[in-house]
Amino acid sequence: MICREWASQEAVISVADLGEFGLIAAIKSLLPPDDAAVVGVGDDAAVLPAPDGRFVASTDLLIEGRHFRLDWSAALDIGIKAAAQSFADIAAMGAQPRALLFGLAIPGELPAEWVLDVTRGMVIECERAGATVAGGDVTSADTIMLAITALGSLAGRAPVTRAGARPGDKVAVCGRLGWSAAGLALLQSGRAETRSAAASLRPELAELLTAHKRPQPEYRAGPLAASAGATAMIDISDGLVQDLGHVAAASGVCIDLRTDWLPVAPALQLAGRELGTDWLGWVLTGGEDHALAATFGERAQLPAAWTVIGSARSGAGVLVDSVPWESAGGWDHFRKATQLSAGSAH
Amino acid sequence: MICREWASQEAVISVADLGEFGLIAAIKSLLPPDDAAVVGVGDDAAVLPAPDGRFVASTDLLIEGRHFRLDWSAALDIGIKAAAQSFADIAAMGAQPRALLFGLAIPGELPAEWVLDVTRGMVIECERAGATVAGGDVTSADTIMLAITALGSLAGRAPVTRAGARPGDKVAVCGRLGWSAAGLALLQSGRAETRSAAASLRPELAELLTAHKRPQPEYRAGPLAASAGATAMIDISDGLVQDLGHVAAASGVCIDLRTDWLPVAPALQLAGRELGTDWLGWVLTGGEDHALAATFGERAQLPAAWTVIGSARSGAGVLVDSVPWESAGGWDHFRKATQLSAGSAH
Repeated sequence: MICREWASQEAVISVADLGEFGLIAAIKSLLPPDDAAVVGVGDDAAVLPAPDGRFVASTDLLIEGRHFRLDWSAALDIGIKAAAQSFADIAAMGAQPRALLFGLAIPGELPAEWVLDVTRGMVIECERAGATVAGGDVTSADTIMLAITALGSLAGRAPVTRAGARPGDKVAVCGRLGWSAAGLALLQSGRAETRSAAASLRPELAELLTAHKRPQPEYRAGPLAASAGATAMIDISDGLVQDLGHVAAASGVCIDLRTDWLPVAPALQLAGRELGTDWLGWVLTGGEDHALAATFGERAQLPAAWTVIGSARSGAGVLVDSVPWESAGGWDHFRKATQLSAGSAH
Repeated sequence: MICREWASQEAVISVADLGEFGLIAAIKSLLPPDDAAVVGVGDDAAVLPAPDGRFVASTDLLIEGRHFRLDWSAALDIGIKAAAQSFADIAAMGAQPRALLFGLAIPGELPAEWVLDVTRGMVIECERAGATVAGGDVTSADTIMLAITALGSLAGRAPVTRAGARPGDKVAVCGRLGWSAAGLALLQSGRAETRSAAASLRPELAELLTAHKRPQPEYRAGPLAASAGATAMIDISDGLVQDLGHVAAASGVCIDLRTDWLPVAPALQLAGRELGTDWLGWVLTGGEDHALAATFGERAQLPAAWTVIGSARSGAGVLVDSVPWESAGGWDHFRKATQLSAGSAH
């Protein structure tokens, strides 16, 4: 399944050719300086300012064959995706991304350029998020793994947890829903397996592929929601229904979604027709777009780009159009069924 | 090489049996509460206090077959070692460990109890270091990988980097040198492969095995050295000579070690005789004990438990008894030679 063409490219400079310290030097040369860091990259640890006396921290893993496939995603995309998925967790607390630390486990025969492209991807997403790379670790392994720790600042705001939703609150989202899942479905269908097949796709569908490879969370929406009085917030990484289920459980409320209020991109409907699939499944259960979901008091003025999709009430769990949601709500990394054995790239 | 007995233990509850959220709940139940955290485990991100307006952060990876072997190290040891290696980086900045975040990539067929023992090990080492577990991520993978991010507080002290050593400074260490390497050599020799063989070892040698499996860094030595005016400091993770080489390079000095000043445990000499090996190699090039090395001004009063082992002067590189050090100085994770193919557990 995994495309490891580099094994036959003897002229390519590998990670092992560079050696650990050569590789680290090459990675460092790609990182923009962080003048505000007390101690930046290259020491035992980074020292970063925490102007309001607090900092926000979250960690995530990405595994080859689980979270990405080398034949579907370029190294640059993988770097972008890795940073994006972690910074989305920071934004979901109402915080501003500040820095990331990365751990990179890679086979020695991997081209050094692949690792540098992952680094370039992380740098691109750091710049989009207003953050920097503050440190890292590289080691050898048979499987490629990225471990990302994202760090952020609340800039004086109170953190928005999953636990503050109250009956009567509006439930809203900001960002894409189902795009990544639709892009993955297109890849799995074989319609975009090769570059030429992908290039011949309609532009709307190609955009779904890009959304799968490079999620583009709306980081600023998190702090804006916090300032607007969001009572609870979460990064939708495992699927809308499942992640709202976490909010419902932590807050002790029931969340009722209205499917006719959900923001649905025309491209999703197009992809649904193309693949003979109901696009609503992607919107309700697709993760990885890293949209934000939040709850707001009944009278709160929602920030721009947020869309109301339902409401909270007394009770428990998630309803879809007032009917209890029974289907698989999202992703479980250890579920024994078809997910992993089907080689999903989730 | 790797002992994966659990594959045949059908009665054992596996990670896949518990499922991602069942596993996370079981892990959470083992974590002591952190009353000082603004937001603790269980949300999108942790929010931690940074009383002096700064925080220290470092990340490290541990890979099965590279950093540990399942037939040599119990899960509890692996958790302890993972936390210790990262907290040592925090201490080496002169900071106090505060919290860790962990990423855990594991096969679904792994017994859930193994994962819980890793967690218990991390909790044990957190308590020894004065820190807590603040968050994590679990995902499935074919190879076991741990990614640890350690976070710490300088409590108003200036951070001690690798770059501040000056000609005339004393060079000193605090902690064990070569113990872990000697323990590894005992394991590799087959003298301690089985439990019964290990049990029949002399107690001094058994202590070296334990040192390899459970490094015990002297965390308090870092802040104490910072308060005593250390000009540079580093965690010895790759070997004394190699890591002092980083200090020499970052500071623009030459470091001259005196071998007759090095603290050498009698157990090392015993193990050297037993294996027909020169113990000095372990002391100079063995990593993983996570001793701290630091430089101090000529007139500085060293804190208790620190031992002077040499001095800094104008020049570059590391001398051993005034002779340039030419041998392999330590560990390179991608070196093509015998390290990895020999299946070293480093």
